[in-house]
Amino acid sequence: MNQVPHKLYLPEDKLPEAWYNLRADMKDQPDPMLHPGTGEPIPADALKGIFVEELALQEVDGATREVSIPGGVMDYYKTFRPSPLCRAYHLEKALGTPAKIYYKFEGNNTSGSHKLNSAVAQAYYAKEQGLTALTTETGAGQWGTALSMACAFFDIDLFVYMVKVSSQQKPHRLSVMRTYGAEVIPSPSDTTEIGKKILRENPETGGSLGCAISEAMERAAKKENCRYVLGSVLNYVLLHQSVIGLETKAAMDLLGEYPDMVIGCAGGGSNLGGLIGPYMRDKLTGKASPKIIAVEPMSCPSLTRGRYAYDFGDTGMMTPLIKMYTLGSGYIPHPNHAGGLRYHGMSPILSKLYHDGYMEARSVGQRPVFEAAKLFARYESILPAPESAHAIRAAIDEALLCRETGETKTILFGLTGTGYFDMTAYNSYLDDTMSDYRPSDEDLEKSFATLPRL
Amino acid sequence: MNQVPHKLYLPEDKLPEAWYNLRADMKDQPDPMLHPGTGEPIPADALKGIFVEELALQEVDGATREVSIPGGVMDYYKTFRPSPLCRAYHLEKALGTPAKIYYKFEGNNTSGSHKLNSAVAQAYYAKEQGLTALTTETGAGQWGTALSMACAFFDIDLFVYMVKVSSQQKPHRLSVMRTYGAEVIPSPSDTTEIGKKILRENPETGGSLGCAISEAMERAAKKENCRYVLGSVLNYVLLHQSVIGLETKAAMDLLGEYPDMVIGCAGGGSNLGGLIGPYMRDKLTGKASPKIIAVEPMSCPSLTRGRYAYDFGDTGMMTPLIKMYTLGSGYIPHPNHAGGLRYHGMSPILSKLYHDGYMEARSVGQRPVFEAAKLFARYESILPAPESAHAIRAAIDEALLCRETGETKTILFGLTGTGYFDMTAYNSYLDDTMSDYRPSDEDLEKSFATLPRL
Repeated sequence: MNQVPHKLYLPEDKLPEAWYNLRADMKDQPDPMLHPGTGEPIPADALKGIFVEELALQEVDGATREVSIPGGVMDYYKTFRPSPLCRAYHLEKALGTPAKIYYKFEGNNTSGSHKLNSAVAQAYYAKEQGLTALTTETGAGQWGTALSMACAFFDIDLFVYMVKVSSQQKPHRLSVMRTYGAEVIPSPSDTTEIGKKILRENPETGGSLGCAISEAMERAAKKENCRYVLGSVLNYVLLHQSVIGLETKAAMDLLGEYPDMVIGCAGGGSNLGGLIGPYMRDKLTGKASPKIIAVEPMSCPSLTRGRYAYDFGDTGMMTPLIKMYTLGSGYIPHPNHAGGLRYHGMSPILSKLYHDGYMEARSVGQRPVFEAAKLFARYESILPAPESAHAIRAAIDEALLCRETGETKTILFGLTGTGYFDMTAYNSYLDDTMSDYRPSDEDLEKSFATLPRL
Repeated sequence: MNQVPHKLYLPEDKLPEAWYNLRADMKDQPDPMLHPGTGEPIPADALKGIFVEELALQEVDGATREVSIPGGVMDYYKTFRPSPLCRAYHLEKALGTPAKIYYKFEGNNTSGSHKLNSAVAQAYYAKEQGLTALTTETGAGQWGTALSMACAFFDIDLFVYMVKVSSQQKPHRLSVMRTYGAEVIPSPSDTTEIGKKILRENPETGGSLGCAISEAMERAAKKENCRYVLGSVLNYVLLHQSVIGLETKAAMDLLGEYPDMVIGCAGGGSNLGGLIGPYMRDKLTGKASPKIIAVEPMSCPSLTRGRYAYDFGDTGMMTPLIKMYTLGSGYIPHPNHAGGLRYHGMSPILSKLYHDGYMEARSVGQRPVFEAAKLFARYESILPAPESAHAIRAAIDEALLCRETGETKTILFGLTGTGYFDMTAYNSYLDDTMSDYRPSDEDLEKSFATLPRL
């Protein structure tokens, strides 16, 4: 290839045929899930009561390196994959940087983000198992939309608990899910016991992902032929999301490029965990040592200011205990606008890798994030999701550093999605009513007090 | 290529390097624009006072077959082109049709539609001429968004007059334009004389494209170094949009496919005129005879029930006279939700081709259109714009006909855009509050009375 194109799409017959399980290359595995009552590891069989069977098996399987992508999943993948690997020529020029900036754009589908990669797999396995309904939670709405699309395709009923503040900021997201046949319930709600309890204690709360998870789990437990599914954090989600990194690596290889650093935003970790796969593998196996950078919002800094501890995945303390970086399941994040990053915990795989020094993390304020988003939109034409703009901010900062040092670094970041449903947040930035919220140490100490004692 | 992929992207170095001017192959040219005062054809020189110079030249040039796409335009094209040619495998299966359904998807960019193809060209030529500001109108908001993006990139001020009912139904569209730096004014407004006049006569009006055009033209005329630009109808717009058809033909050729019919929705004609280019050329030169079908809303049936006559392009009767199929510039369309198809006239090129029997037209009601949209979203994963769903409706109808007859026809349609900003309309369909409005013959007679007498 003579010149690097602005966008590179792999041919359909070059799409990855198997997901990559990062755990297979980790010398030290993430710690297992524990039963909150006994404090003992939960065997896969017990997880099957909570999760879709195949997903429960994937959750605990740290050994299988490659997992075939089923034909039924592939069929749907091909309606929106491959996603393009893009070279940010115009942004580079605007910044005056010698750095080469690449991004993998996962927003070119109706869900507006990478979440669809795992949604399709989860709905497919649920259908295979003969389930007729699923429940889930959604923050920014991208995961809920993705699962609605997948459930419409595979003909499965879906109940989505949507963080209330997001449902108010993004009523149109809710309508999209409805168009795909899902029932959407703003959370906390009075459809569950935990929802009622939270509303009694804090009637004005805008909700949180943790709380919506509790409601969705309760609903699934009470309904026949129904399971709860989750769009981030869990190991099986990272497995499905590995398709992002595999496509990226294949495209970068075609171009003869290797990144000096890989940057992704991190909420629950599904995007970052998927994007970094093959590059983290190189690092784990000693083949190369690209810098891996997680970017999180200053308002919800689980990696940069959290504790590495066993914690519940939800506010209602219903999930198994997960060893991860966490702010405490009682942490109710400030209603900033990057809804998808508003989660107290972090993927146990990423948490382990971060703990063991294989990646770094930084947190950024909202206003510099939206400043980066606006600049990116102007020169690269895509209006990014606020979540994705966290990665853009870090990529721009690195590129500006290169301008100072004169280094021609190759920067790769994940552009997880589009911001079409985030205009309330953009308006708040344009109107200068947006603030950079940073929780105080005292706030964090209070929520750390909600960590379970083992 | 062994199997037709779900999505085919041309490699970047195979992108068309020149636009195709359909008029060069028409034996009978569309009639020239007339000066409304004198009734005489307007020379290119006079058009330069209204339009950007290069665009004025393109408007009257019926002879040049190929027009090079300038490098500056190409630079921006590559941030969102090529668009994919898609095979609707899942929809075909759901319909149980032996037909092969292809669609060219133009919605994978932030403007959400094909409009960006011409917006980039227009902003580029304006910048080259040294203009510092542009004005325009927008209905559904796609054109306004597209031009906002282009003006942000080329650093030009932009004033967008947005049909009031659309700005109310789609406040987030307005915010997107704002993010790209445009000033958006709901029309009719009190910022122009014609706006004030319309508001005096009909204070409750939701506005129309025709009226917004008048306001934008008046604003441009009063501002220095500023011109009015238009996203549809005009010949130069169809020229830029030819990139759709050229890419489509190149991709279909790669697959060894030739459509039996080419279907597109038609408001002002920019998408249809661009899509059909190479196929209409085959028809004009006698090489092939694919069926060409324009689909318009029952509520605004300019081709199927309009008159072929000289008319104003706008409600304020400020534009030159254009020979086209029209409902009369006084026609105020019902506030249905396909904002982009809410225009009283039709591209003079398409009007001429339709008049001369080279294409056919049909009109469809809103509810069957949204029924088709929902089905398409479920199986093809993309949430279509209501405008585009008019073409989907016709394509599905043709595919169902094939199921009856057993014919394996090849159907190609233009999927012009996405419906992310049209959720108010989708809600109205889901809530069953949507109606299939059809103007009475009496209504049309009334608006025909607004046609100018020559």
